[in-house]
Amino acid sequence: MQGKIIIPHRQVFITSAASVAGHEENAGPLAGRFDITDDGDDRFGMDSFEKSEAEMQRLVLNCAMNKLGVTENDVEIVFAGDLLNQCVSSAYAYTENEIPFLGLFGACSTAAEGLLMASVFTSFAVDCAAAVTSSHNCTSERQFRFPLEYGAQRPPTAQWTVTGAGAFIVSADPQTGNRADGLAVEIAAALPGISRDFGINDANDMGAAMAPSAADTILRYLSLSGTSPEDYDLILTGDLGQRGSELLRDLTSSHGVDISQKHADCGVMIYDIDGQDKHSGGSGCGCSAVVLAADIIPRIRAGELGNVLFIGTGALMNPQALMQGENIVGIAHLVHLKGVK
Amino acid sequence: MQGKIIIPHRQVFITSAASVAGHEENAGPLAGRFDITDDGDDRFGMDSFEKSEAEMQRLVLNCAMNKLGVTENDVEIVFAGDLLNQCVSSAYAYTENEIPFLGLFGACSTAAEGLLMASVFTSFAVDCAAAVTSSHNCTSERQFRFPLEYGAQRPPTAQWTVTGAGAFIVSADPQTGNRADGLAVEIAAALPGISRDFGINDANDMGAAMAPSAADTILRYLSLSGTSPEDYDLILTGDLGQRGSELLRDLTSSHGVDISQKHADCGVMIYDIDGQDKHSGGSGCGCSAVVLAADIIPRIRAGELGNVLFIGTGALMNPQALMQGENIVGIAHLVHLKGVK
Repeated sequence: MQGKIIIPHRQVFITSAASVAGHEENAGPLAGRFDITDDGDDRFGMDSFEKSEAEMQRLVLNCAMNKLGVTENDVEIVFAGDLLNQCVSSAYAYTENEIPFLGLFGACSTAAEGLLMASVFTSFAVDCAAAVTSSHNCTSERQFRFPLEYGAQRPPTAQWTVTGAGAFIVSADPQTGNRADGLAVEIAAALPGISRDFGINDANDMGAAMAPSAADTILRYLSLSGTSPEDYDLILTGDLGQRGSELLRDLTSSHGVDISQKHADCGVMIYDIDGQDKHSGGSGCGCSAVVLAADIIPRIRAGELGNVLFIGTGALMNPQALMQGENIVGIAHLVHLKGVK
Repeated sequence: MQGKIIIPHRQVFITSAASVAGHEENAGPLAGRFDITDDGDDRFGMDSFEKSEAEMQRLVLNCAMNKLGVTENDVEIVFAGDLLNQCVSSAYAYTENEIPFLGLFGACSTAAEGLLMASVFTSFAVDCAAAVTSSHNCTSERQFRFPLEYGAQRPPTAQWTVTGAGAFIVSADPQTGNRADGLAVEIAAALPGISRDFGINDANDMGAAMAPSAADTILRYLSLSGTSPEDYDLILTGDLGQRGSELLRDLTSSHGVDISQKHADCGVMIYDIDGQDKHSGGSGCGCSAVVLAADIIPRIRAGELGNVLFIGTGALMNPQALMQGENIVGIAHLVHLKGVK
């Protein structure tokens, strides 16, 4: 059993979470729960979608800091990444503040990777860190698949890249700032994923590429921690969609572990899939980030969910590599969240 | 003064370093010092340059592990990143081993960012981590500038992307494996960079975009640590090239800090710039990684250099963003290396 569970060296907490979302996301089941939305054209006042996505990261970090009552002088480091070539949404988002910046690339697993990083760094190196990520439907579609103007048909396995950004502030002190009432959200443990090639090479079937990685990370975590699905209130994957979720449940079942009563997927939760014609569901770095920030963390704070395994799922690929005959590499990073008094 | 120096929670050491380089690099001043070279067509046996670059990362990590006498079961995590869209060289490099993988994007600062990450993680979370990065002239040129076949003319400020990969194994125990004789190389401290936009938007003048970031990080580190250039044997930047190096020295001088007697740049060191017609010098993630692995770390081990500030410099941009009128964002991460008995 390869890998080791990372336990923060001191208790660390998600003390603030914020979400920014587009109009399609704010028309789904989580409507009204996002902190900032653009219910018009998803441009957030900018003249290109790439700039819109950087603006979303700026907005969401500012929002998370404001909710907590802290400023850029209090946040000692920001971890950020996104799907754009050379992660430019993240690169352009933080040039106007003075927060030290460490760039990540975990594709759609970035929210989990950022939380993992923040939990390690706040263990001793800093007292307060931020993890931010974003995706935008219009930047992703034209970069990874087709320009929107082509109106390309999408197969049933295709997912819809979420227009959304999430920011999480991780602090060693649960009382940092004026945190909202309720339980504190502890990052109790984390498990980095292993990159794996399962032979999937269809950019319209990302769920299939990521599901085996999610299964691998979940099974490793349960085994290494000596726990079972019954010990958790929720096993939440990032963006497997309907198809990837079915595959994940089948895969864990084939290893004798039934997660079906505990599993949910952010890509399935974020849209009314049939009503909004979203095929297999949502995807993208922003998918799990906004669902975690807008729905799951408030439910942990309210005491509704006590023990949550959050598994960020990522598909590591680019279109050129697929044209060169490479497969899509899957990765899945896990963080274990707990509501504590 | 924003930012905080990160001091590892326990002593951590670079216990192994390896380098893989192409034929142009092995024809320069460091010829014969690299562990593995392709002195023919820089393909390393693969049928596309993108696959060659992934192969270089695989080779260099294996080489670093072999030199130390450890296996993939001993390395508990690998931090890796590169310049390709969605960091695919890194993504494809580790699917055949079982090492947990955390992807980074720091552009050409990735070697320093990886060492910083590894020093924090080996402080308590793991005992042994690897940091790996790569660049390849043929993959970078066609992605960032022009297809090689165009034979585009390059201005004097242009840099030459290094074909090279470096791997560093960071361990809490300096006696891990059968480390080569000599002093141990301690990572004594690190300082994450702040992303900054200085208004440069010429992809053929990366040195100018990164020099102010290097100056900023160096000046912050000296100020925060209460030290001066005289306290160090070497202040080594990653890939500013000749032009960026001049700018850096001017910038620090304008703040009353003269680094000219201590400063060297990997991008200047790696080529016989005039003899090899390399314009402003080398660049790319691999540039600082191979110079550090092949030249600097052996000199620290030999006792020739006792105190080294290594500043990885990165230009955060993509060609589309520049066409949309954005500037190149600079970043510079610092690690402080010490030879210790």
